[in-house]
Amino acid sequence: MVFQKAITVPTRIHGDVHDLTDRVAKIVSESGIATGTVNVSVIGSTAAIGTIEFEPGLKKDLPEMLDRLIPPSRGYGHEQAWHDGNGHSHLQATLMGSSLTLPVSDGKLVNGTWQQIVLVELDVRPRTREIVVTINGD
Amino acid sequence: MVFQKAITVPTRIHGDVHDLTDRVAKIVSESGIATGTVNVSVIGSTAAIGTIEFEPGLKKDLPEMLDRLIPPSRGYGHEQAWHDGNGHSHLQATLMGSSLTLPVSDGKLVNGTWQQIVLVELDVRPRTREIVVTINGD
Amino acid sequence: MVFQKAITVPTRIHGDVHDLTDRVAKIVSESGIATGTVNVSVIGSTAAIGTIEFEPGLKKDLPEMLDRLIPPSRGYGHEQAWHDGNGHSHLQATLMGSSLTLPVSDGKLVNGTWQQIVLVELDVRPRTREIVVTINGD
Repeated sequence: MVFQKAITVPTRIHGDVHDLTDRVAKIVSESGIATGTVNVSVIGSTAAIGTIEFEPGLKKDLPEMLDRLIPPSRGYGHEQAWHDGNGHSHLQATLMGSSLTLPVSDGKLVNGTWQQIVLVELDVRPRTREIVVTINGD
Repeated sequence: MVFQKAITVPTRIHGDVHDLTDRVAKIVSESGIATGTVNVSVIGSTAAIGTIEFEPGLKKDLPEMLDRLIPPSRGYGHEQAWHDGNGHSHLQATLMGSSLTLPVSDGKLVNGTWQQIVLVELDVRPRTREIVVTINGD
Repeated sequence: MVFQKAITVPTRIHGDVHDLTDRVAKIVSESGIATGTVNVSVIGSTAAIGTIEFEPGLKKDLPEMLDRLIPPSRGYGHEQAWHDGNGHSHLQATLMGSSLTLPVSDGKLVNGTWQQIVLVELDVRPRTREIVVTINGD
């Protein structure tokens, strides 16, 4: 069995972190699938999907860490070609990853109490993000 | 067809790397699934799952690299709120990722000779980690 | 339903980035699976799979970023044991990840217009890479 649904998330700014856990858990419930996996993928090359404890400290720490490792810069080859100011957005998204697969057991998403599924906006302007949720199993 | 089993791994310390390959390969064999994928996910927000050549050099290099990129620090927002000393643990786990999906062919886990599936403990104290292994296929 | 096929990609050098999107999309079409997920995994511990906008600027920026974060060095434990000059290759591959799972909808791979699936060669010599593509769904 397979069940798929897309959700959209409007974002405001680089470093905007959104908790998708409840929406993903609801789609898992709707699917009627008892055992399997759920894949959460963001379409696009300047946003990331991951897990983190969704609390105000880490919501700030995560984009700060990414900006420290891969800072905004005019020096990227991407900037020299496109001048759109988001070279770091692409590289941060590639390093963190655009998709995630977690288990489904007893008809429910399996995640830790302090482990949420998040979308991280890494582009430099507001976007409307499409996220595809796919459950495979029985 | 889907087959799922949880395993537990006791860990001792930040940077403890455990080879899960044999246990995952055994669950793949038990599943009776010939072709498909196997997902390996750790429940929790301060541990990571990945692949690496499991040899003493890299076992030391991997957590050292993560500590160099994302050092322990009292400066994280997470620390200022929770004072539990594991802000870097959360950020390292998010960057490396908490799950992994590999192919299954001819009833066997497909991995390179020098490519093992590992759990990396990133928290600052011993933990008992639960890892869920799910095989989807035919 | 499940469908699996392996492809090979010869690579030339550390930092060689290959666009796999068309080949993966073709395997998705061949599979006859309308809805589900496609997993793309590289076998081996010194190459990575990810998504990025495949354009000349980022093709150069991505390996440069990885080399800046995890530079070649004789100081790694891996080097001291094996002297094969690819300690950074292993660590870069582990951090970026060796596999990726994206959605399949209406019989097609779902990816953004500027979001390609890439193989990144991280080893220090030419390799022939085997990539296994697995589609699960209905």
